[in-house]
Amino acid sequence: MKKSCKYGTHRVIEPAGVLPQAALRLDNDMTIHSNEILIDVISLNIDSASFTQIKNETTDIGAKILEIVNQRGKMQNPVTGSGGMLIGTVAKIGSELSNRDLREGDKIATLVSLSLTPLKINAIKAIHTDIDRVDVDAQAILFETGIYAKLPEDMSQELALAALDVAGAPAQMAKLVRPGDSVLILGGGGKSGMLCCNEAMKRVGPTGRVVAVCVLEEDKEKLQAAGLCHEVIVADATDAFVILDKAALVNKGREYDISINVVNVPGTEMSSILPVRNGGIVYLFSMATSFTRAALGAEGVGKDVTMIIGNGYTKDHAEITLAQLRENPKLRAIFEEKYGGAV
Amino acid sequence: MKKSCKYGTHRVIEPAGVLPQAALRLDNDMTIHSNEILIDVISLNIDSASFTQIKNETTDIGAKILEIVNQRGKMQNPVTGSGGMLIGTVAKIGSELSNRDLREGDKIATLVSLSLTPLKINAIKAIHTDIDRVDVDAQAILFETGIYAKLPEDMSQELALAALDVAGAPAQMAKLVRPGDSVLILGGGGKSGMLCCNEAMKRVGPTGRVVAVCVLEEDKEKLQAAGLCHEVIVADATDAFVILDKAALVNKGREYDISINVVNVPGTEMSSILPVRNGGIVYLFSMATSFTRAALGAEGVGKDVTMIIGNGYTKDHAEITLAQLRENPKLRAIFEEKYGGAV
Repeated sequence: MKKSCKYGTHRVIEPAGVLPQAALRLDNDMTIHSNEILIDVISLNIDSASFTQIKNETTDIGAKILEIVNQRGKMQNPVTGSGGMLIGTVAKIGSELSNRDLREGDKIATLVSLSLTPLKINAIKAIHTDIDRVDVDAQAILFETGIYAKLPEDMSQELALAALDVAGAPAQMAKLVRPGDSVLILGGGGKSGMLCCNEAMKRVGPTGRVVAVCVLEEDKEKLQAAGLCHEVIVADATDAFVILDKAALVNKGREYDISINVVNVPGTEMSSILPVRNGGIVYLFSMATSFTRAALGAEGVGKDVTMIIGNGYTKDHAEITLAQLRENPKLRAIFEEKYGGAV
Repeated sequence: MKKSCKYGTHRVIEPAGVLPQAALRLDNDMTIHSNEILIDVISLNIDSASFTQIKNETTDIGAKILEIVNQRGKMQNPVTGSGGMLIGTVAKIGSELSNRDLREGDKIATLVSLSLTPLKINAIKAIHTDIDRVDVDAQAILFETGIYAKLPEDMSQELALAALDVAGAPAQMAKLVRPGDSVLILGGGGKSGMLCCNEAMKRVGPTGRVVAVCVLEEDKEKLQAAGLCHEVIVADATDAFVILDKAALVNKGREYDISINVVNVPGTEMSSILPVRNGGIVYLFSMATSFTRAALGAEGVGKDVTMIIGNGYTKDHAEITLAQLRENPKLRAIFEEKYGGAV
């Protein structure tokens, strides 16, 4: 057995010397090293940008997923580069990790991307196209640095998975948004968007303003009924000038302090940049974001904004996100209806 | 004539509705609208990532540039998406912009990317492969929101152009770096890198630490002779683990507060992320940066860092950058030797 690296580089087949996320192919042999954890996988939660791309490319989603995993040893969409996360039970813990607060049989969700997780699928059991989820008979490997969360006992695994999958964005918002801020959330109707809305509403307080942009009329009703924002704009987030106009209209003509992008289609960078004031923050969480479009786009219109790449990890992100579902019964009800019932 | 937009959308041929930067093709008819400025172009400064890509793709750089501009109506590299900037003289100012502090005949540098600037090249006069510059007989259009700088009288146009081309990065550092910080600058040997090093040295003060990573031994000597950093690491910035080890070694084993990436080749995201402490900042200025590699890379190794997309524009960036050359004679001497002599 090769020397084990805490980042999992011992699993990289090609190209040599890169980290597992950048690898074209990983060794998905399911014999674990002493610093790895073997997981019996129950479900894959495919990243929304990736799942949308696959749905647009083919009608046989299962075959495409198998093709990718067989080729790469991991579920990393070659077009979007993104992965998702998984839920499963701990099958075996490497000897070096025996001091972890984890036992064989524990049900966990991995909080590192599938784009760096060695995976072997034996069979696809079901594809839930409405929630980007694929139930599988599969095994996966978690590296020493791989973060995970034990599933909570006060909610169904489907509910926890749906929230944990996007745990990064709302937790980052909790650290970012301040009282009195005006916040524009593009993609507000999605699950990440709803969690961000909820967190922003808590943070801005009575003098702030939270505006959600979503593409479906039904999402508008849902967001308003649950009190997840002050205003909803129904529009195509790729149309920067429509967004700019409508966003100003519901914010007394003023520019925003912060925009959050959790849209799952490409081409929404400018819609996130134009409505924000100079000195404001543009938080880009969509995996469909283009680095150059954002960088050159802001420069091109002379916008002095701080553009942040959404980091899927921040301290205590799992706890922060699960707490939101516990705090807000209306939000939890929406999630339970869509992603799976209560325990 | 179509209605004129301050962002230049009236010049977009396809696809409809996008901003000029995202357009596949711009209208480069050189009849100006009332809110545009016509420029007689002297030189193009091609973005370093773009020029490197073209050099690697073909030996006939001139033909490739003409092909791109003829096809797109702007000099935007289809692979990297990036542009660069230009220097020229003001040929005509639209009637709506007559109140600008600008006259026909003024020599200016545009500070918006070539990736959104309508351009028509009549002839290529010279290609300076060592400094990514192309002298041309050409005309270009500056939009109402397009930022520019009049060229200073106390330095040669070549020198000013070389500095202004990368004005964003050092000006952002001036706002970011604080006393006592340890700063790792990847790509420290390039012109953007040297300006960043110089700015960081000013900001960190006696208790801070500035470490440059460069790929050439000669750059190490240059940086040290000019006192532009405390330590230099000569290594390939795509090799994340080598960078991690060497960076720790010259920082007393400690992680860095800030890393700045101004490397002009792809695949250096993890080298920027791994050496930085949790809670630290990773500033990505390279146009070769991949959004997904950065976002998923940090998550994959559980790094709680703030990753910022380098914005080529920030308030007063031209002044901040030119001031550096005036303040530091050694830095100015290096720039003059490489990019062009004193006035």
